[in-house]
Amino acid sequence: MAETSLIAEPGKQDVVISRVFDAPRDLVFKACTDPELISQWWGPKAFTTTVDAMDVRPGGTWRYVQRGAGGEDYGFHGAYHDVTPPERLIYTFEFEPMPGHVALETVTLEDLDGRTKVTDRVVYQTVEDRDGTLQSGMEEGMNETMDRFTELVEEMQKE
Amino acid sequence: MAETSLIAEPGKQDVVISRVFDAPRDLVFKACTDPELISQWWGPKAFTTTVDAMDVRPGGTWRYVQRGAGGEDYGFHGAYHDVTPPERLIYTFEFEPMPGHVALETVTLEDLDGRTKVTDRVVYQTVEDRDGTLQSGMEEGMNETMDRFTELVEEMQKE
Repeated sequence: MAETSLIAEPGKQDVVISRVFDAPRDLVFKACTDPELISQWWGPKAFTTTVDAMDVRPGGTWRYVQRGAGGEDYGFHGAYHDVTPPERLIYTFEFEPMPGHVALETVTLEDLDGRTKVTDRVVYQTVEDRDGTLQSGMEEGMNETMDRFTELVEEMQKE
Repeated sequence: MAETSLIAEPGKQDVVISRVFDAPRDLVFKACTDPELISQWWGPKAFTTTVDAMDVRPGGTWRYVQRGAGGEDYGFHGAYHDVTPPERLIYTFEFEPMPGHVALETVTLEDLDGRTKVTDRVVYQTVEDRDGTLQSGMEEGMNETMDRFTELVEEMQKE
């Protein structure tokens, strides 16, 4: 599988994640924005994700709930700032157990002759918030998520 | 008048602005969130600001239009992520002539025995965006805005 790049420079308050998917940009954008597909790729495999709200338009809100093996629920939510199909999504992100700690995500989809490079720039309010997220296992979770996303877009292309 | 503090450390991608207002927190929150009051304080004095949209709730959007002396219009817009009266507002911010360049603002209102400390933490997608905004005259514009805001909350207390 393709490799995921995660860049988090010391002392900065962002994380930049990128990966190239062997699928056209329209399909990758659909996989990112279709509420029916989120549960198939969002989050690590050990969790079940359900979409509580997902209104993909500027000012629309989203909320996902992750359930762990022990039955515990974790909510995530935010608001969309920018939705420009098939090239850009900008939205806020909050992990509900840490209220008031919010990140801004800018997802850009670049067409590479039929393949698609996705770059997710996540900016935190503080360096401490960024570092705390990294230390909580962000990279492992992100790798699993990206692998699941790759499987989904491969599957979608067979249909 | 009280002094405004602006902190922008080299190499970071945020700006932290704070100021203490001699007014109770509820009143300061109202001045921040009432569409009818925005034109009285938002932006430098040389511009006229009109509120095109302002739906102060999570997922609501806002849009202001600034008109310069020469009649030229500049739009600004964003979406609210968090609205917690009277203590916190979190929203996105985009200056329309620079589409896709978005900041996340976290405004906190702290009660200091009847006075109110307002802290606005603005986080940009990149250091370059942060530095560009600073170089465009952010501090002068912000000082004028803060002076106008001070005058407004003084006036509101006389009513």
